[in-house]
Amino acid sequence: MAAFDLDNPVFVTYAIASAIMVLKVMGQGWMTVYRMMKSDSGLASPEDLQSGPLNKNPRPDQLAINDYVDRSRRMHRNDLENIPAFWAAGLVFTAVGPPGLLAQVLMYGFVAARLVHTIAYATEQRHEVRASFYTIGSIAVIVMAIYALIALIV
Amino acid sequence: MAAFDLDNPVFVTYAIASAIMVLKVMGQGWMTVYRMMKSDSGLASPEDLQSGPLNKNPRPDQLAINDYVDRSRRMHRNDLENIPAFWAAGLVFTAVGPPGLLAQVLMYGFVAARLVHTIAYATEQRHEVRASFYTIGSIAVIVMAIYALIALIV
Amino acid sequence: MAAFDLDNPVFVTYAIASAIMVLKVMGQGWMTVYRMMKSDSGLASPEDLQSGPLNKNPRPDQLAINDYVDRSRRMHRNDLENIPAFWAAGLVFTAVGPPGLLAQVLMYGFVAARLVHTIAYATEQRHEVRASFYTIGSIAVIVMAIYALIALIV
Repeated sequence: MAAFDLDNPVFVTYAIASAIMVLKVMGQGWMTVYRMMKSDSGLASPEDLQSGPLNKNPRPDQLAINDYVDRSRRMHRNDLENIPAFWAAGLVFTAVGPPGLLAQVLMYGFVAARLVHTIAYATEQRHEVRASFYTIGSIAVIVMAIYALIALIV
Repeated sequence: MAAFDLDNPVFVTYAIASAIMVLKVMGQGWMTVYRMMKSDSGLASPEDLQSGPLNKNPRPDQLAINDYVDRSRRMHRNDLENIPAFWAAGLVFTAVGPPGLLAQVLMYGFVAARLVHTIAYATEQRHEVRASFYTIGSIAVIVMAIYALIALIV
Repeated sequence: MAAFDLDNPVFVTYAIASAIMVLKVMGQGWMTVYRMMKSDSGLASPEDLQSGPLNKNPRPDQLAINDYVDRSRRMHRNDLENIPAFWAAGLVFTAVGPPGLLAQVLMYGFVAARLVHTIAYATEQRHEVRASFYTIGSIAVIVMAIYALIALIV
């Protein structure tokens, strides 16, 4: 049986987890847009100070860093440091044919950890909370990559 | 028929769009290099102030932020916030067997939107122009992920 | 024969290289954590100044940019600008059935170039060294994408 096929339950798990993470990453971009609009600040480029539908009252201080907006950018960056590696690790892990339960624990565990991390970051929880869920997600990805490497090389 | 096969026209569409987006992302890195060399500024690390073939006339202000160079880095960051999610969403979308025309509209639409976004950003068009093409690309990725999720779960 | 199958030596090469690059990216996150803990500085969010197990002696200057920590973040960013594009390019390149030796040269060449780039960046080698290995890795990805595009379109 081919690994990357809807008949393979591990691939289905991977595809569901991947698609949820796509929505997470894209949604983070829209959180940044929402926070820029709501706070009328945190703009990124000098030309954004032109008056127009997206900026009715331009002021130079709109280019300054605003933690409300910058927080969403940091969350986005944290996503980019973890989620594309999940997409790659999950694909290679799926290819080597792991047990279905292990795949579900690691993949849905990663998804859950990243969603809780997002809530912790957005609500400004203490560093230890954010770090704990970052760690869970990171370990899930690392385990998938090492599992695959061992299966491929040994 | 396997989904990830050159006999599948949706996969061929995905592969062409993915490869073009790879060249876009890598090209953005080279635009940053070009702008650093041309403006002789916008360097990222203190050790880059050593005299050498890449820096014949070192000065401390070369480490300051220069909008000409930083713009290319912002464009690159914007790519990273969108294009890897396209690679993942497109793969999962391909796996669930969408109609070929829908795949072409979403995938080539994404590629076109990102290329126009790049031009708008590089030429410092007003925020509304950049935002419009960002939105088109973002929606294409979100639609692919939701389409795949529905097919996988329902 | 299916392209994405462990019977295909090019896919095995891709999977090994991808998994190693997953560990590289995830490891870079842990280098940042290690450097934050060791230097007790370089924190990213205001709430990280709360006293707790991760921060026993909070001080406002912990939020200032610290090159020791920021260097690891720049290395991470440089990874994100290159490695996800490798994952995508390698997949598409594998799909079009390249010669096994070419795949090994490009994929393991990319991995080797990125690992040497990491060492050069971490040890603050001159710009020319870092740039050389960046270039090798970048060219490997670009060649894979162009090779795939030509095979897909022509």
